[in-house]
Amino acid sequence: MTMKDLLKIDGARLWQSLMDMAEIGATPGGGVRRLALTEEDRLGRDLFAHWCREANLTVSVDEVGNLFARREGTNPHAAPVLVGSHLDTQPHGGRFDGVYGVLAALELVRVLNDAGMATEKPIEIVSWTNEEGARFTPAMLGSAVFAGAMPLAEALARRDAQNVSLADALAVTGYRGTRAIGTPVDAYFEAHIEQGPVLEANGTAIGVVTGGQAIRWLDATVTGMTAHAGTTPMPYRKDALFAAAQIALELERIAEGYAPRGLATIGEIGIPDASRNTIAGQASFTVDLRHHDDGEVDAMIGALRVACAQVAAQRGVRVEVDTYWRSPATPFDRACVALVQDAADAFGYSCERIVSGAGHDAILLASHCPTAMVFIPCVGGLSHNEAEDALPEDVTRGANVLLNAVLARAGAMATTDSH
Amino acid sequence: MTMKDLLKIDGARLWQSLMDMAEIGATPGGGVRRLALTEEDRLGRDLFAHWCREANLTVSVDEVGNLFARREGTNPHAAPVLVGSHLDTQPHGGRFDGVYGVLAALELVRVLNDAGMATEKPIEIVSWTNEEGARFTPAMLGSAVFAGAMPLAEALARRDAQNVSLADALAVTGYRGTRAIGTPVDAYFEAHIEQGPVLEANGTAIGVVTGGQAIRWLDATVTGMTAHAGTTPMPYRKDALFAAAQIALELERIAEGYAPRGLATIGEIGIPDASRNTIAGQASFTVDLRHHDDGEVDAMIGALRVACAQVAAQRGVRVEVDTYWRSPATPFDRACVALVQDAADAFGYSCERIVSGAGHDAILLASHCPTAMVFIPCVGGLSHNEAEDALPEDVTRGANVLLNAVLARAGAMATTDSH
Repeated sequence: MTMKDLLKIDGARLWQSLMDMAEIGATPGGGVRRLALTEEDRLGRDLFAHWCREANLTVSVDEVGNLFARREGTNPHAAPVLVGSHLDTQPHGGRFDGVYGVLAALELVRVLNDAGMATEKPIEIVSWTNEEGARFTPAMLGSAVFAGAMPLAEALARRDAQNVSLADALAVTGYRGTRAIGTPVDAYFEAHIEQGPVLEANGTAIGVVTGGQAIRWLDATVTGMTAHAGTTPMPYRKDALFAAAQIALELERIAEGYAPRGLATIGEIGIPDASRNTIAGQASFTVDLRHHDDGEVDAMIGALRVACAQVAAQRGVRVEVDTYWRSPATPFDRACVALVQDAADAFGYSCERIVSGAGHDAILLASHCPTAMVFIPCVGGLSHNEAEDALPEDVTRGANVLLNAVLARAGAMATTDSH
Repeated sequence: MTMKDLLKIDGARLWQSLMDMAEIGATPGGGVRRLALTEEDRLGRDLFAHWCREANLTVSVDEVGNLFARREGTNPHAAPVLVGSHLDTQPHGGRFDGVYGVLAALELVRVLNDAGMATEKPIEIVSWTNEEGARFTPAMLGSAVFAGAMPLAEALARRDAQNVSLADALAVTGYRGTRAIGTPVDAYFEAHIEQGPVLEANGTAIGVVTGGQAIRWLDATVTGMTAHAGTTPMPYRKDALFAAAQIALELERIAEGYAPRGLATIGEIGIPDASRNTIAGQASFTVDLRHHDDGEVDAMIGALRVACAQVAAQRGVRVEVDTYWRSPATPFDRACVALVQDAADAFGYSCERIVSGAGHDAILLASHCPTAMVFIPCVGGLSHNEAEDALPEDVTRGANVLLNAVLARAGAMATTDSH
């Protein structure tokens, strides 16, 4: 197959759909606010469902509000190839995070329709409920329920900051469906902006995502001794803040020792009963550690514990480090990843293998069915921000790769009429 | 004069007065809660005034509630030697902070009465209003008004957390007096617990306080770039928290370079919109810098600015350092300090010269009249704490020094009758 023979998406049509959808919940700052199961999200879902019906797809909604649109295959017994992402956004979100994967899936179906091309397996587009976690926690709630990682009843009972349950929000928006949870899936593909700077910095068009990285969230507390900032000579101090600062720099050094894959972040820090002229008796901070490999991230934790013990001994403070949450590394399916790679290669797009740093519905789906993802660059690596942006050519390239990977998995059949 | 000839206070009587006063506002934890111009403070003031009248002193109250008790001298034209401290406490205060200086002054007058000893200059005991700053800000309000550092009207308009003005609190407690502010003073002496660990650690009985240290309060803000903790490789980061940690350790190193007199404290730190899995785009922290010498503390600030510029250049972040407050070093009067030293030497007490790390009414008075202070050790250096404690022998020694320094300054006259 030469590049000329490859089926291609209509980049202008996809871009227009993205811009039309971005009108719903558009913010003055150029972003989008379409929090899960709000009126804006309902309008977004309605527009998407409308487009799906225009494309002769069968729309259904499952019990947690995940929205499906099905294009039948020629094999009535085949499980569908699922393609999608999410339509909800962060409070100050952008025009691409999530919605790109959903509308790229819609575009690929439109192209198949235009080409009169059948597939052996059905293709189902999906928009997952509450991926962002901005209104209801946890994030990726809909895909977690679908994949069996969270009981339906627990999800329905989750409440937002105004104490509205997910069940009620589904009822209000009309998106509490009856379709069963966790139906069989042949494979899942998701296109998404990278939400990081790597592809853009490397000048790479396509990220062939090989999986999700291992994540560990720790809570650290340094306990020293509160004392008067004016009357306590330095050698008498057990300053919890300076001890925490030393641990922070050790942590950064540890991450650098695991470069380029080791990541370490202290996102929160605080001193209880803090006062400008009081030596900190306690300092608490969070640690976010990531690596492609579970063994390596655990080795980073080990190194952090050694550093904490050294600081504790040196400064006469106590350091406690507790694990708050651990998420194992999630390798994607080799065959599906290969289909993404093949499609990118067929188009001659520059591409690189990449591990997803962010959470995605695909990470949850990977435990349910063979899964792969396609990343495209986003401008400045910016996401969860109204200024989030992607270049039209990258949007087109990613959708072309998605189309051809899905087509290969779903089994392209003879064209039913000539175009 | 041999030690046997020295006039001595009655340690048991002073201790009993301290314990009696500690009953007013006593907390279950063994401390005292006698916030300025509350009902407890009124009861404490009333008891003190009662004791003063029993000692034939003339009680007066000035317009900001400072409470005076006068023992006349033989010279009708002489300005009084003022001796005192404060009766108010922190919310979880102890039994010695402030009250020790007031009741040691009362004890020395009682001893003069018992000895039938006159002084050339009058002696006035003073209890300053709102020294702690725990109910009304700023701290040392009463002495600041007395010394002309704060206008009376401004002080009277200060409001507590319940929006009660100082003027109303004075009226409610009956302690808004009519005595003029800032009457002439020959000299001011104040005894106080050290509120630090130095005297105890050195096994020293008496701290001959030579003045108050220079203090600088700075606000530092590091601005980096907010980014996703999972998708941003370490070399792409401008992590404001790690930059702040590096500056913190540089600050500690700078203080150590100015040992033993340089002190540096980061009492508050925060990340705006902090999130566990978001790289800190900004980190703000306070800096408390102290040294005996203004030039030295300013040199410490200079070194800090150099370090901040280096960290900024190295990490591609912006660091701003603003001065929030500066308090110059306050040397006490050489002659008055010498009287304290002489008294300690006469008793053969171990003593050392010390600069006050904490704020005291004496720091304000020093701009109004010749001033000196006497420090005694406190157990474990602990203060502003219910467990604050002092040993009876130290309490006695400090009051003996205070008595003899004041007596020397006030001019001891012949004993009027034999004891």
